[in-house]
Amino acid sequence: MVAATARLLQRQGMAATGLAEVLDAAGAPRGSLYHHFPRGKNQLVAEAVRFSSARITRAIEAAMATPRPLPEAIRAFAAFYENSLSTSGFRDGCPVATTALEASGLGATEVEAACAEAFAAWQEPIARRLVADGHSPDRAEELATFVIASLEGGLLLAQSARGMQPLHTVASNLAALLPPDTA
Amino acid sequence: MVAATARLLQRQGMAATGLAEVLDAAGAPRGSLYHHFPRGKNQLVAEAVRFSSARITRAIEAAMATPRPLPEAIRAFAAFYENSLSTSGFRDGCPVATTALEASGLGATEVEAACAEAFAAWQEPIARRLVADGHSPDRAEELATFVIASLEGGLLLAQSARGMQPLHTVASNLAALLPPDTA
Repeated sequence: MVAATARLLQRQGMAATGLAEVLDAAGAPRGSLYHHFPRGKNQLVAEAVRFSSARITRAIEAAMATPRPLPEAIRAFAAFYENSLSTSGFRDGCPVATTALEASGLGATEVEAACAEAFAAWQEPIARRLVADGHSPDRAEELATFVIASLEGGLLLAQSARGMQPLHTVASNLAALLPPDTA
Repeated sequence: MVAATARLLQRQGMAATGLAEVLDAAGAPRGSLYHHFPRGKNQLVAEAVRFSSARITRAIEAAMATPRPLPEAIRAFAAFYENSLSTSGFRDGCPVATTALEASGLGATEVEAACAEAFAAWQEPIARRLVADGHSPDRAEELATFVIASLEGGLLLAQSARGMQPLHTVASNLAALLPPDTA
């Protein structure tokens, strides 16, 4: 049920995803929802955000753990999102962004917190890699925020324009910004 | 009716915004909707996106037209978004992003096109300023994409985290990236 919700959230966000659709997609009986998620839709959505977030964290960790230079690691992670856009006809972008924006606007605090934790978690492997490359912890954290923000924005623009160029532009400009640097 | 829709879209996106709510917010009779927007909700939403987009374009043009250095112009535009977040308790972020993501996922092509045009239009004053500062037209276009992508992502992260830091981090790192440069 969590995985089915995660797929629906990635494609259409939180408001367009009804509980009946989730139960249908998961092949689950109606009673199971409030059994497993007594706080209802917001709890299920928050759990689905954590599920999607863990998948993205693993993709970032995989990209960062290789011995290749950081610019290539950034490009590898951008390629992960590019694959999601191209295999879905530009319908599946970031699995968290749509829900994050909706939750913030609507004041759905449980969901909002899960989304904020996701974005923060994604920055950690990048910050660790930047520290390993010689940046100070403070600078590494700042650059990791900049990397995730830029990639999220590039993904948004690419999905909206139905073309990969904004994502490529972001990845290559980030790459130019991120030589190992202890200054 | 367009302005009321634009306000609702900024806060809650497209799926959560029902036509009854729009009519109520605008104080308009039901019949007026299909009179003015014969293609219905998607046409109204696309028109509201264009309305919001024009407001953002004016804010960017105002920030870019001043004689101050580009990094300060970028910060001035980031401050425009910061003001929107702080006066709304982090509920009003980018007026287009939520709708853009929903429209792409749901395949609402008329809305999707209006959102893509918005993001493209916002890049133009930045690219013009970069050309005036000595960048080649190609490089200016690329950097303008990077600026809008990064700021959109910074806004997303700031709204989600309910704190301005991601937006500040993006603006200051962009500022460092953007000295006048004819290389």
